[in-house]
Amino acid sequence: MLAQRLIERKRDGGRIEAGEWRALVLAYAAGHVPDYQMSALLMAVFLRGLDRGETDALTEAMITSGVRLDLSHLRTPRVDKHSTGGVGDKVSIVLAPLIAALGVTVPMMSGRGLAHTGGTLDKLESIPGMRTDLSVHQAILQLERIGCVLIGQTDEIAPADRKLYALRSATATVESIPLISSSIMSKKIAEDLTGLVLDVKRGSGSFMPELERGLELARTMIDLGADHGCPVVALVTAMDRPLGRACGNALEVEEAIHALRGEGPPDLMRVTFALGAEMLQLAGVAASREAAWRDMEVAISNGRAAEKMREIIEAQGGNDSVVDDPAVLPQAQACELYDAPRRGFIARVEPRTIGRGVVALGGGRQRLEDTIDPSVGFVITAKPGDWAEQGEPLATIFARDAAGIEMGRAALREAIVIADEAEPPLPLVSHRVTIEGAEPYES
Amino acid sequence: MLAQRLIERKRDGGRIEAGEWRALVLAYAAGHVPDYQMSALLMAVFLRGLDRGETDALTEAMITSGVRLDLSHLRTPRVDKHSTGGVGDKVSIVLAPLIAALGVTVPMMSGRGLAHTGGTLDKLESIPGMRTDLSVHQAILQLERIGCVLIGQTDEIAPADRKLYALRSATATVESIPLISSSIMSKKIAEDLTGLVLDVKRGSGSFMPELERGLELARTMIDLGADHGCPVVALVTAMDRPLGRACGNALEVEEAIHALRGEGPPDLMRVTFALGAEMLQLAGVAASREAAWRDMEVAISNGRAAEKMREIIEAQGGNDSVVDDPAVLPQAQACELYDAPRRGFIARVEPRTIGRGVVALGGGRQRLEDTIDPSVGFVITAKPGDWAEQGEPLATIFARDAAGIEMGRAALREAIVIADEAEPPLPLVSHRVTIEGAEPYES
Repeated sequence: MLAQRLIERKRDGGRIEAGEWRALVLAYAAGHVPDYQMSALLMAVFLRGLDRGETDALTEAMITSGVRLDLSHLRTPRVDKHSTGGVGDKVSIVLAPLIAALGVTVPMMSGRGLAHTGGTLDKLESIPGMRTDLSVHQAILQLERIGCVLIGQTDEIAPADRKLYALRSATATVESIPLISSSIMSKKIAEDLTGLVLDVKRGSGSFMPELERGLELARTMIDLGADHGCPVVALVTAMDRPLGRACGNALEVEEAIHALRGEGPPDLMRVTFALGAEMLQLAGVAASREAAWRDMEVAISNGRAAEKMREIIEAQGGNDSVVDDPAVLPQAQACELYDAPRRGFIARVEPRTIGRGVVALGGGRQRLEDTIDPSVGFVITAKPGDWAEQGEPLATIFARDAAGIEMGRAALREAIVIADEAEPPLPLVSHRVTIEGAEPYES
Repeated sequence: MLAQRLIERKRDGGRIEAGEWRALVLAYAAGHVPDYQMSALLMAVFLRGLDRGETDALTEAMITSGVRLDLSHLRTPRVDKHSTGGVGDKVSIVLAPLIAALGVTVPMMSGRGLAHTGGTLDKLESIPGMRTDLSVHQAILQLERIGCVLIGQTDEIAPADRKLYALRSATATVESIPLISSSIMSKKIAEDLTGLVLDVKRGSGSFMPELERGLELARTMIDLGADHGCPVVALVTAMDRPLGRACGNALEVEEAIHALRGEGPPDLMRVTFALGAEMLQLAGVAASREAAWRDMEVAISNGRAAEKMREIIEAQGGNDSVVDDPAVLPQAQACELYDAPRRGFIARVEPRTIGRGVVALGGGRQRLEDTIDPSVGFVITAKPGDWAEQGEPLATIFARDAAGIEMGRAALREAIVIADEAEPPLPLVSHRVTIEGAEPYES
């Protein structure tokens, strides 16, 4: 009866009190509220919204459904980064070891590929032997020993969120700002972070293409963090083209390793450093953006960042020689250059088309149960605004066979638009959002 | 995948095409679409609405999920009446035999009590032996033989509607005009009616207290009927006080029998005749409202209406001596008068409070699995606008025991408001709605 009364109230635009959220979420996690009632409520929430207090209470209820870590014994700041998802976004794989190398504990909890976007877990698992399904206990031991862990969501932390998320995926109730925010923040708060940096993607390849929605998501998560003692800072970054050059699981790990060695493409480095500087400042180990930037450059140039990556891979059962020789990663059977079909400016490199292309090649899931081929994908050297001569190579296609090469070619033909003129692309980092509000990002 | 795409589209305010409704509803009826997806869609429909074409397609899809009768071999007009539900509303029990006695086939499909309102099936089953769970085959045989049947929804007609209705009850998605309309009309159209009269209740005791919503429901059902060759006429009637005097299952059957003998209370007779006149005109057996009214008065005064009632009860296994002697109905163990606590005008007789009082006495269901006590209830002789002296009897309470009498007394004390002045109650019949629009009802 409780569920029905709450559905009715939310349906009519009313609010659900904290005690009611708690009772409902715990009853749902325990199987006492059926999925069909919860999905009706989720749709009502999607269309009617939640106010700040409700979002807070839902988050708290999901935390309460599982284990809440206490990592205070580590005596170090604990900072994570979360991205709203994009194409070619391998920032986490660079950032986690880089920031951990600078004395900050990084308990990084990532996800799998969703729709056209890639997932950090899928990318990491292209490293032979690498495991991401650690228990909470194993993760804590690893944090104590090497200060960083790269894992997926466990059943122990916020299990109600996991169950709710699966239901949302099946009922078209994913893209709701309060539901997204409470889902992410319940896990981050349960991890006992001392700070979180949020990478809000904007542009055609992101889940929320409009800037205003991205800013609203950032504000909602910042408020949630503030209410739970976890300061959040958000940067709005460009996803109107893929980030870096590599798109595809093993290809992106390879590019991340190059980045840790100081050989990353400039756009990837710039976004990574911008986010990293916020993490270091939140952690209190850098006094300014400039100082943070210098520290990161040093950690890369002296090899400590790459060394930390090796420690993480070794600790999680992976073949750590990948750090010296990315050739141990799975290699595609077929590969071929893609040349500019005409001369002109690169007007667009459409990330959704690229991301769907990777999925079509076998590098992502069409259904939840699909296995993925980590070797396939694209390395796209052309960037919007570049000038290209006819026949100049713009990208390389990595596929299983000749049919895959043909599919890849078709995807690139659609995604890379060459024209007589080109608009400037979005700024790589356009806004910084804190508890005080949004401001343009001064680089 | 289909369900998810349709949920997403409706969520964003888009429309679902006829073929999609058909595929979705049939897949749901067959168990291929889970309840949790359907309930998310129902909530999206509740909040976003359906246009006329969609409501039509949903209705058609629900019809297609079951048997569609062909009663053309009866060679008579077939008319039913449907009410949106009220307190003391025993009109169906009077109207069905009365109209059938005048040569119109009346295949009347009724429901059970819902919330504070009573249900025709529950009332009929207070007649010893009376069965309402006839198969479609049995119902057709009875229609051929005596021209009237009083039954509940069967599994054969619109089974998808039945499954959807149960889901709507559990997910707070009942009170949506397109969902209500398609639910009712799918069954009426599958019954192969040649006309339907709709009794739209307005006022505090109805499910849609506001006139505007009631008119919208009427228009939606009239449009649906027009699109399926089933003309619909609606009357808007008063439910700001109980209809007639009796409220409670056996008590209402007794009052209905009195009405069939020409001894019904004036408000009940007026609403019954107004609806009956529309039925007779839709059936083409009366040329005008005045002619219809005369025909009904004759059928009552010459005993043919009561005789038809006897035939129906006998055909459905009931003790037909009830028509001569209502004392064969279950009798309450305790009964007591309720007197006016002060002198003044009867300012209100609140139907919701009365209806809930009947449920509290055991005459309705608090949960779906409850059995009901047919004997309990109220006979309220006081009507809004009447003058009452202190100590004058206003009602009689019928209960199981002294505790029930006390509960009944409390309900009446709350429901019957006596004051120094009284506003006029709503007109008994205020509007008539046809395909041409709504007009004030001229009596």
